[in-house]
Amino acid sequence: MPENKKTIMSGMRPTGKLHIGHYMGVLKNWVELQNDYDCYYAIADWHALTTKYDETEELNKHIIDVATDWIASGINPEESTIYVQSLIPQIAELHVYLSMITPHNWVERDPALKDMVQILNKKTDEQEPKEPAQSGVVTYGLLGYPVLQSADIMIFNASLVPVGKDQVAHLELSRDIARKFNYIYKTDYFNEPQPKLTHAPLLKGIDGQKMGKSFNNDIKLSDTDKITTKKIMRAITDRSRIKRTDPGHPDECEVVYEYYSVFADEDIKDTVRKECSAGTRGCKDCKIELANLLNDHFKDIRAKRLELEQDTDYIKQVISEGSKKAKQRAAEVLEEVKDVMKLYKI
Amino acid sequence: MPENKKTIMSGMRPTGKLHIGHYMGVLKNWVELQNDYDCYYAIADWHALTTKYDETEELNKHIIDVATDWIASGINPEESTIYVQSLIPQIAELHVYLSMITPHNWVERDPALKDMVQILNKKTDEQEPKEPAQSGVVTYGLLGYPVLQSADIMIFNASLVPVGKDQVAHLELSRDIARKFNYIYKTDYFNEPQPKLTHAPLLKGIDGQKMGKSFNNDIKLSDTDKITTKKIMRAITDRSRIKRTDPGHPDECEVVYEYYSVFADEDIKDTVRKECSAGTRGCKDCKIELANLLNDHFKDIRAKRLELEQDTDYIKQVISEGSKKAKQRAAEVLEEVKDVMKLYKI
Repeated sequence: MPENKKTIMSGMRPTGKLHIGHYMGVLKNWVELQNDYDCYYAIADWHALTTKYDETEELNKHIIDVATDWIASGINPEESTIYVQSLIPQIAELHVYLSMITPHNWVERDPALKDMVQILNKKTDEQEPKEPAQSGVVTYGLLGYPVLQSADIMIFNASLVPVGKDQVAHLELSRDIARKFNYIYKTDYFNEPQPKLTHAPLLKGIDGQKMGKSFNNDIKLSDTDKITTKKIMRAITDRSRIKRTDPGHPDECEVVYEYYSVFADEDIKDTVRKECSAGTRGCKDCKIELANLLNDHFKDIRAKRLELEQDTDYIKQVISEGSKKAKQRAAEVLEEVKDVMKLYKI
Repeated sequence: MPENKKTIMSGMRPTGKLHIGHYMGVLKNWVELQNDYDCYYAIADWHALTTKYDETEELNKHIIDVATDWIASGINPEESTIYVQSLIPQIAELHVYLSMITPHNWVERDPALKDMVQILNKKTDEQEPKEPAQSGVVTYGLLGYPVLQSADIMIFNASLVPVGKDQVAHLELSRDIARKFNYIYKTDYFNEPQPKLTHAPLLKGIDGQKMGKSFNNDIKLSDTDKITTKKIMRAITDRSRIKRTDPGHPDECEVVYEYYSVFADEDIKDTVRKECSAGTRGCKDCKIELANLLNDHFKDIRAKRLELEQDTDYIKQVISEGSKKAKQRAAEVLEEVKDVMKLYKI
């Protein structure tokens, strides 16, 4: 890689097969970035443990699934570094150093953490209390998740992190930590990681809520055409439209017309708007056309995915080589960090 | 090492040269244990960072000093494993895993932590506020110090930890964490580390307070006979005794008679008690005799220390070899932990 390329770091938790929201909102952007930047993309299994430490049975499967989805989506292992977080022990060590300089109250103010604690508390309320494992409890590690995330970024001394608008605040803490490290150890070693804003559309689930595996409202990259069509047929449209001949309101069609605005070209969008508003296009036909559009859009990715599914050894090899490369770079940074901190060396 | 030897783990923070309180209270016991147990003794530099992250200038010197004091005191590198904590990255990784299963409120209840936070708050009150480094602030890492300590112990799957009576409570958390790990991952892999109580006398500083470097009331293992004598001459005796001919009260002689009770044989103790009580022995003479006793007690250790000071390369070699051995054992445990947790492996 040329020296003048800036380093980008981002990642996803391995919680299962990815959906088209992941693709449109994140992966598409990652693919575009890989030409111009030195990209490190993490399958963040340690972060999965922050809330699901007692659900590791399928972790390996999930990791393979995520890597498969990424490569099928166009993340090129020759250009980008795909790695598994837990294979880079240097992150854990840097995490120790960063945790020593991060005031406790900086961690507690993290907005994402507050959200997560809320979700967990809700989860705990709904479930029978489990003792002594207490799945859903706020652990020390969950509290420190923003510090671990900072270590994820700083272990490659990344200067840019692709995020959506809603995540800009998280990066603030990483910048604060990088700045504090530089101040304490009288150095300018660490970049203060900046957000690389993506303006990707946020794709809702078929029920109009946030798309997510656990909400059972997502369309997976790995779904077949048939399943996709079936899911789209269940999607929310204009709730005020009762009969096929009623005039529809595309702007109030929460999911289907929104998907059109993302996946269809201008001509089709115009036609749909006109026909729907005139009451000459029924929701069923509209959905069938949308499903076809979607299936067409993800045709190549799905074909590639089917191919990759047959070759798990290749996926494992990509993970292995990417992780080795990431580990090597992480080891270089950590050595320099230890020099700066004046830690003991053999 | 024979398989049937139990594993012991303990450590000290590298904050400078050790004093005779360290020797009498800890090291003497460590020396005795090394025949019967497989002992891992850590120079815990990460723990030093929990409160002194901005004071790393002398860390290397302190590490050498501690190792020198240990070996001079009889810790035998052929029997015990002397290592530097930061050279065992597996501890940081295990720390990540343990932090994911440790409820936040378990960490906050730790009594030692409460003490430390109090000391730090006091320190911060006394000092001019420093911004943005804020030395003395409670960091996320300080909060997690009992989790890191658990990782220290569990990375060798140690079953015994030599502690004084006052530290038994700390070990409770480590046992709770070990137990919770075993429960969650349906295993009996981790031992629940038990305290190995030491009944060593707690040696006060020459001012009658807790002996400590920062209180300027300690007698160092590395002090010369002359300095030792000078310090003992400043030591507290029976505060009610004004004149040499006043009858003294050995039981109220806070430091000097207490030291006699530790370092002198029964005959000498009897003589001192009688002569002091009768007012026929002055404090000055009594201190000179005590200083001689002390200097005699530490004669061999000091001679050995002077010898070792001339051979820093040897000390470094001991640290290097011990750390390599510790790292190898830690890597074995971590592999097994990752298997039990079903984490991804290349």
